Amino acid sequence: MESDTGSGDTAIQRIALCIEYDGSEFSGWQRLTRPGEPDRRNEPTVQSAVEDAVSSVAGARIDVVCAGRTDAGVHAAGQVVHFDSPVHRDPRGWTLGVTSRLPPAVCVRWCLPVEGDFHARFSARARRYSYRILNRPVRPALQRQYLSWERRSLDADAMHRAAQALLGENDFSAFRTVHCQAAHARREMQDIVVRRERDIVEVQVQANAFLHHMVRNIVGSLLMVGRGERDESWIGELLAGRDRTVAGPTAPAAGLVFLGPRYPAQWKLPAEVTL
Amino acid sequence: MESDTGSGDTAIQRIALCIEYDGSEFSGWQRLTRPGEPDRRNEPTVQSAVEDAVSSVAGARIDVVCAGRTDAGVHAAGQVVHFDSPVHRDPRGWTLGVTSRLPPAVCVRWCLPVEGDFHARFSARARRYSYRILNRPVRPALQRQYLSWERRSLDADAMHRAAQALLGENDFSAFRTVHCQAAHARREMQDIVVRRERDIVEVQVQANAFLHHMVRNIVGSLLMVGRGERDESWIGELLAGRDRTVAGPTAPAAGLVFLGPRYPAQWKLPAEVTL
Repeated sequence: MESDTGSGDTAIQRIALCIEYDGSEFSGWQRLTRPGEPDRRNEPTVQSAVEDAVSSVAGARIDVVCAGRTDAGVHAAGQVVHFDSPVHRDPRGWTLGVTSRLPPAVCVRWCLPVEGDFHARFSARARRYSYRILNRPVRPALQRQYLSWERRSLDADAMHRAAQALLGENDFSAFRTVHCQAAHARREMQDIVVRRERDIVEVQVQANAFLHHMVRNIVGSLLMVGRGERDESWIGELLAGRDRTVAGPTAPAAGLVFLGPRYPAQWKLPAEVTL
Repeated sequence: MESDTGSGDTAIQRIALCIEYDGSEFSGWQRLTRPGEPDRRNEPTVQSAVEDAVSSVAGARIDVVCAGRTDAGVHAAGQVVHFDSPVHRDPRGWTLGVTSRLPPAVCVRWCLPVEGDFHARFSARARRYSYRILNRPVRPALQRQYLSWERRSLDADAMHRAAQALLGENDFSAFRTVHCQAAHARREMQDIVVRRERDIVEVQVQANAFLHHMVRNIVGSLLMVGRGERDESWIGELLAGRDRTVAGPTAPAAGLVFLGPRYPAQWKLPAEVTL
């Protein structure tokens, strides 16, 4: 089957794309205008860039749904989106065709046709993030788009031990922004690891889902433990207190990379996004 | 001793700085105009940025000498420079003062006062470079300033074996650009390693010194071996033939990072730049 125009539901195919992007050139994932309209002046979004490129390949206006929205300046190594296409293209055609129409800061890593009931957001059972901090007296020059910076010496082992208090299903109100629109703050923290490699301290977190600014607020509080300004037990106390006003500040966006969502094996997606 | 103005030779102090820079925003290391003049329109150089910042801290016009000049788009993790200062500042003052006057793409990692006969270029016994290639079907979005890209599958083990033919003191005419101004082409290749980590293939090379474009020309030829277009023995044959016109093309600048020079222990510099 190779046709440029679809006719009726039988021709509609649900497609999953894995997207990589450098968030430093975007005002976040979410489109700020209605589909097809240009982005607000000086506020390009990743969603608009992807929808424009997909629509160009499809020859029809197409909206995409992502696994996890990212804020301005936050990067993604493996964002997953789905959309319904009225035209047939093979996976290689989507991958190369969409990438060729994207700005240099965005590309499609892979493409797969999926079942009609796959949903990039609702089918995901976990999301994983990496947050990297350059820990030395002088600000970064190389890699500065992808790092935050802490000049005071960090105790990464203390940060790791403190972070373990967040594991399990908890109310994460202490780490959500006041602008968070989620109906409730219960999330399941599945994994959180803090490790140092030379002068880089990396925090990796995985939860079933995240509240708005949750990763950056957790990192902001862990930094206070790492600098010795708070005891290791403080992170658990913050969690129990559910009070955003006493936690640490929100860490900068540049250090954050959305590694990607994780789906049950039934969807037959690549291993890197499968639980 | 703490004075803002030097008087006579006794007050002159030789200073070594370690500089990190993102070369994607510069037309290479070397200043294109005379000291104190603005860079040519749209052609900023790292040397001018560093000299302007050092001069501002010193309150006098100061020229710097680097360990190894880099081309446009080439990065440095540990470039070393020296200069003679007529004023006294402590190392922390130089590091933070110069960094605060540099553009975001450049910083000073450390500063040390050195003996008057230390020379950033002539005292160095080795230089080390890293070249990183993203090896996957789709171009990079994340980290694209710091990677080159090869869509065809590379055999990194074959590249590594082929590269070993370059070890030792040899005439590297096959890998020098026609614009190279060096008096002769004999260089001592001390170490060359090719390894893969997931979809990144990295080539690390260390020699006593390098000819112009030598690293990028070696990588360009190794890529032909990695893609299976040439036998592993071809690299050794190229070297023996001394003919630039038959070697591979010059690999792009973006993948190249000057890790830094290496000095004899007598200079008492930090371990990372000491042999």
